[in-house]
Amino acid sequence: MEVISRTACFGGTLQRVRHRSAACNCDMVFSIYLPPQAASHPVPVLYWLSGLTCTDENFMQKAGAQRSAARLGMAIVCPDTSPRGTDLPGEHDSYDFGSGAGFYVNATQAPWSGHYRMYDYVTRELPALVEQNFPVSSGKGISGHSMGGHGALVCYLRNPGVYQSVSAFSPICHPSACAWGQKALSAYLGEDRNDWVAYDAALLIGDAQEKLPLLIDQGTEDNFLTDQLKPSTLEQACIANHYPLNLRMQEGYDHSYFFIATFIEDHLHQHAQGMGLV
Amino acid sequence: MEVISRTACFGGTLQRVRHRSAACNCDMVFSIYLPPQAASHPVPVLYWLSGLTCTDENFMQKAGAQRSAARLGMAIVCPDTSPRGTDLPGEHDSYDFGSGAGFYVNATQAPWSGHYRMYDYVTRELPALVEQNFPVSSGKGISGHSMGGHGALVCYLRNPGVYQSVSAFSPICHPSACAWGQKALSAYLGEDRNDWVAYDAALLIGDAQEKLPLLIDQGTEDNFLTDQLKPSTLEQACIANHYPLNLRMQEGYDHSYFFIATFIEDHLHQHAQGMGLV
Repeated sequence: MEVISRTACFGGTLQRVRHRSAACNCDMVFSIYLPPQAASHPVPVLYWLSGLTCTDENFMQKAGAQRSAARLGMAIVCPDTSPRGTDLPGEHDSYDFGSGAGFYVNATQAPWSGHYRMYDYVTRELPALVEQNFPVSSGKGISGHSMGGHGALVCYLRNPGVYQSVSAFSPICHPSACAWGQKALSAYLGEDRNDWVAYDAALLIGDAQEKLPLLIDQGTEDNFLTDQLKPSTLEQACIANHYPLNLRMQEGYDHSYFFIATFIEDHLHQHAQGMGLV
Repeated sequence: MEVISRTACFGGTLQRVRHRSAACNCDMVFSIYLPPQAASHPVPVLYWLSGLTCTDENFMQKAGAQRSAARLGMAIVCPDTSPRGTDLPGEHDSYDFGSGAGFYVNATQAPWSGHYRMYDYVTRELPALVEQNFPVSSGKGISGHSMGGHGALVCYLRNPGVYQSVSAFSPICHPSACAWGQKALSAYLGEDRNDWVAYDAALLIGDAQEKLPLLIDQGTEDNFLTDQLKPSTLEQACIANHYPLNLRMQEGYDHSYFFIATFIEDHLHQHAQGMGLV
């Protein structure tokens, strides 16, 4: 584990860390924000999963979440969005597949299965590493944006008891039924759609064993709303399963970090409630 | 004037605007954030001048200032940091001179004098354009970072009565006496150091005709503190002239936008006081 940068921010510390990942079989970089409270006692961690083309840096630079995290006493960890430096055939050819687009799955298909194991990375390897090496508690929340919103929902739904809070911005709600999801899931998991269910929130939520309140913000002017994100599919599944979803359609907002920045304080507050901080 | 993007943000609207600049004799792009209050009445404007290598976008994406601006009822305008698209000899050869590094001067030396007139642009042309085309009042404040902190101090000190508030982050306080300033001022203004005085805050502040309270934040771990920024030179000039300077040395902070984001709320509050908003 190597700290590659360290920056003061809102009374706490933002670090970027490089380490060898066993899950992804390559070096990975993540960002971690430790609030001022971490100097005196272990703090819970919000895991933030970013969207297509992002790295560990976008959310930390653009969402302004450190401000609320510093007040609430919450750490934030941002993993990268895919393995890096593996240079598989076609890995860098499109923005919505391969590098920057790991979709938080464990790939089963060659050549991806050797590295693209982001599900294990974000649910197991990364939290273990963070809990061993930083002053954090075992308290965990998870959130994300777009592809990362999909990732957050899937990680939460498949791991009851692990997270104390969950939310998402503009998530890909039903990847089996949109172009982004079909392209990624077929290549990473193969053509058998039964294998996609484990990575599809709209299909998983009907069997949710735990029902933490789910906050989702979605902009009405988001260019990807109708064709890719499809929050109504998740909403209908929640209604059918009596799942407590708070889906807020935010009038006039798009898919950008300006949208995330506007509403991140609400999300952190809900996570803080789940974590017992407020 | 052409609006090239429009994004909802904290209940207001962020726009990027392209227009023909007479001062710079080229097309220029600026960003403007209008808070929700601008829908019902004209709001004052904070002009933010960015540092080396920046465009109109960095501050809007990374500082998180829209949050406070939306609460206070203040517009923010971010100009670019130099003329663009002029392709003068050597213009793009270094990060600290030419494109991205206009230093907010009116150049007098060939070939720069035909375009590099950022002082006129930010103090005259841009405010007139903004006041004609957007729902803003004539109330103005000015702030900036690094090269832009220098620009903010110079624009304020040379235009008594024009601005109601002034502040800076990590400004280049005495450009005549640092490498960044000497390189830029000698090329834009010529070798006669008497011509540099009009663009050197530490030299101008002794003759300040107006003494608005000046808030400056400076990180103690800023790599440029000792060699380029030299806040002690400005502090000494303020003491000699009984100028009300609040220079806050912020322990452990560096030169980054994470530093700006941490303290921008304090600055906007002071600007709001000057503008009569609080």
